[in-house]
Amino acid sequence: MPHREAASVSATLANLVATSSWQDISAQSHEAKRSILNFFATALGSSNDPAVLTALRVVTPFSAVGKSSVIGRSERLDILGASFINAISANLLDYDDTHLDTIIHPSAPVAAPAFALAQARNLSGRDLLTAFILGVEVECRIGNAVSPGHYARGWHITSTCGVFGAAAACARLLGLGEEGIAHAIGIAASQSCGIVENLSSAAKNVSVGNAARNGLFSALLAEGGYAASATAIEGPLGWARAMGDTPDLEALTGGLGESWEIAKNTYKPYPAGIVFHSVIDACFRLRDQLGGMTDDIVSVTVRGSALLLARGDRAVMTERDARVSIHHSVACVLQCGAAGVREFSDSVVFQPEIILLRAKVAAELDASLPAGAARVSVLTRSGKILTEQVMHARGSLANPLSDADIEAKLRECARSGETRWNPDRLIAAVWCLETVPDIAELMSSAGGGST
Amino acid sequence: MPHREAASVSATLANLVATSSWQDISAQSHEAKRSILNFFATALGSSNDPAVLTALRVVTPFSAVGKSSVIGRSERLDILGASFINAISANLLDYDDTHLDTIIHPSAPVAAPAFALAQARNLSGRDLLTAFILGVEVECRIGNAVSPGHYARGWHITSTCGVFGAAAACARLLGLGEEGIAHAIGIAASQSCGIVENLSSAAKNVSVGNAARNGLFSALLAEGGYAASATAIEGPLGWARAMGDTPDLEALTGGLGESWEIAKNTYKPYPAGIVFHSVIDACFRLRDQLGGMTDDIVSVTVRGSALLLARGDRAVMTERDARVSIHHSVACVLQCGAAGVREFSDSVVFQPEIILLRAKVAAELDASLPAGAARVSVLTRSGKILTEQVMHARGSLANPLSDADIEAKLRECARSGETRWNPDRLIAAVWCLETVPDIAELMSSAGGGST
Repeated sequence: MPHREAASVSATLANLVATSSWQDISAQSHEAKRSILNFFATALGSSNDPAVLTALRVVTPFSAVGKSSVIGRSERLDILGASFINAISANLLDYDDTHLDTIIHPSAPVAAPAFALAQARNLSGRDLLTAFILGVEVECRIGNAVSPGHYARGWHITSTCGVFGAAAACARLLGLGEEGIAHAIGIAASQSCGIVENLSSAAKNVSVGNAARNGLFSALLAEGGYAASATAIEGPLGWARAMGDTPDLEALTGGLGESWEIAKNTYKPYPAGIVFHSVIDACFRLRDQLGGMTDDIVSVTVRGSALLLARGDRAVMTERDARVSIHHSVACVLQCGAAGVREFSDSVVFQPEIILLRAKVAAELDASLPAGAARVSVLTRSGKILTEQVMHARGSLANPLSDADIEAKLRECARSGETRWNPDRLIAAVWCLETVPDIAELMSSAGGGST
Repeated sequence: MPHREAASVSATLANLVATSSWQDISAQSHEAKRSILNFFATALGSSNDPAVLTALRVVTPFSAVGKSSVIGRSERLDILGASFINAISANLLDYDDTHLDTIIHPSAPVAAPAFALAQARNLSGRDLLTAFILGVEVECRIGNAVSPGHYARGWHITSTCGVFGAAAACARLLGLGEEGIAHAIGIAASQSCGIVENLSSAAKNVSVGNAARNGLFSALLAEGGYAASATAIEGPLGWARAMGDTPDLEALTGGLGESWEIAKNTYKPYPAGIVFHSVIDACFRLRDQLGGMTDDIVSVTVRGSALLLARGDRAVMTERDARVSIHHSVACVLQCGAAGVREFSDSVVFQPEIILLRAKVAAELDASLPAGAARVSVLTRSGKILTEQVMHARGSLANPLSDADIEAKLRECARSGETRWNPDRLIAAVWCLETVPDIAELMSSAGGGST
């Protein structure tokens, strides 16, 4: 039996984080750049959202003078404050990336503190990319070990596992050795939280922001000399047992350094829950068939798996409801021919013709359809039934967004978010991130003002 | 069935917190003052501890210019930073108060942010006392609902429930109405964390400090307009189900406003785990019998419940180990005739004669003894066996510390902590706390410098 300390989960992950070189992970860098572009897209898209402005108003009086940009805006905060706000804005619209095995949205909690720290300390793009890929690895590996029971128990996995990814990425950026990185991961175990019950409220933002902020804080405390139990994750009174009923530690460490979780990341074409994307795709095709004649629609029937119905067959009272509504997903596409940020915002959600159309939509279980698939039928006044079925939605692993799609998403988000940041400069810089000498210059050039 | 919102746990607790007047709670104020004196005692005792100094070094660069004292020291931080540090120092030595039904240490997470906020905003002693009593009520009520399964699952209940008490106390001090207080409590549910596995390391301090800091942060976010789910605690994917296996919600809200949890608070005479206190008491009596002749000791046998043996029958490698060691509890009292902060610190723990004496101690199960009791027997060279049995340790509810004991504890801690704060001024001010017009003046007068 191996020596206990050597075999601990924190130590095993820390070894990967400390010893992986750019050569070891450079094959993952293209997917990492796509993730980072998508991170900036969604952060820019909410840079003027009231929930972000409120958080900024609350946090600013408690920020020391700082060098780290609030993405999409001109304010700067200290590294902890910027991490908190940027993770919130990147996650706010349910438009960020998804690691499908766990339903973690990996980038918001990891990229937010990594950029805040790299900007403040004038670190390079290559260092940032390396730390980001390793942080996502730690975050999703820990998520794999407790899925799906963890989420089903009520844990918001992006928050609870994000803090580990943030800790690992920041500990790498701070240059902590293996031991320090292990302590940072262990300290993160004492800061892991966030419940599903709060997802429909602004309290959700708090746990996502904290995952980023407190992951960085874990790394700073470890740098300062704070230690954690070697068995903080797998011990009898540790994180995995407290937060997951039957953790699978083999899923956590098996094949570490051989396969990479970032390779499984996906990006949403629509700012709605991912299970609704096949419904939206089907409705785009139906709208083409209808030639825009939405007045002809008598009723719409959506068929899908139990997962789709469980998440989406509810009344729409708020924007947040709309983003997880089968009815609204159908209505906005058939009516507007679009499913962007605007179509899931108040200005469209409460239009009378949209409300009417939502009322014509019914959802039915079709157990023969796999999760992620949908079949949508429209009955017209003339008695015709038009049907479209989508097995792999745009943005899924089997039908991924192209690089150009992600660029277009970033530009659209910059527009809808009404930011003054320059999306083209951001896009150009991220595609060659490993050659950027100083993240502070990148952020200034993209619109974050001069230091 | 009552309207769901009206019956929610957050709303029920918020109603108590918002509507209780000084008249409603003034009968609890004497016990609250004892708790607050004990809070200052333990914070002063660690005001120069390396773990506090490290936390202070890490947090200070991220504090805005602040008015809130670091207890026992001259530094001031913003309210979030001071909350974090003062909760750590108050809890650090395992010398703080104990709510025996839950093993919550109630004051550190609640008093730290309440004093930091009251000092910064020039609030009165009466407002502070009221908020403190109500915060402890919320904290311990929520703990009652999930005990004992919650701790057994791996949750450090002082951290996980402390955040609710801090949120409630601070929301009351900020003057939020019922709705705002309910949101503060609900936001706290998304910030509740801290694992038992990390208790033997500095990572423990992080979750205790965060409980204080993030409870206050919850209140500030609620004040700013952030909301939480009405059912954040009791909902199907809420806090109680995620963190407790079979929560007892009746224990949470039954008799609310009639009985008060602060009345059940206890204070330790010794900076050691509470289950060791009867062992220590017995050893003081044995030392009297021995007349200080410790060289005569051949062996010592400690008999107690399974709880005592489970927690304390381990090797002593560090100060933290000593504070939860049967062997060291016996050795320091028999050898030194004392069991104060000094006797559980390195300077005594690693003395050769103490190490020798620890090796002579054996622990045995006696299932006939209730939890909290102990019987200790000493075998001397002359073959005599001396035995003392203690059923209710000093400091237990049945044998509470006197007011004078608590004052003496505060003075001893001020001495051992080598603080420049004036214990006598602090003691005098707390005993008449409801007449203090401005907490800022109290803190300055006690030694925290001028604003």
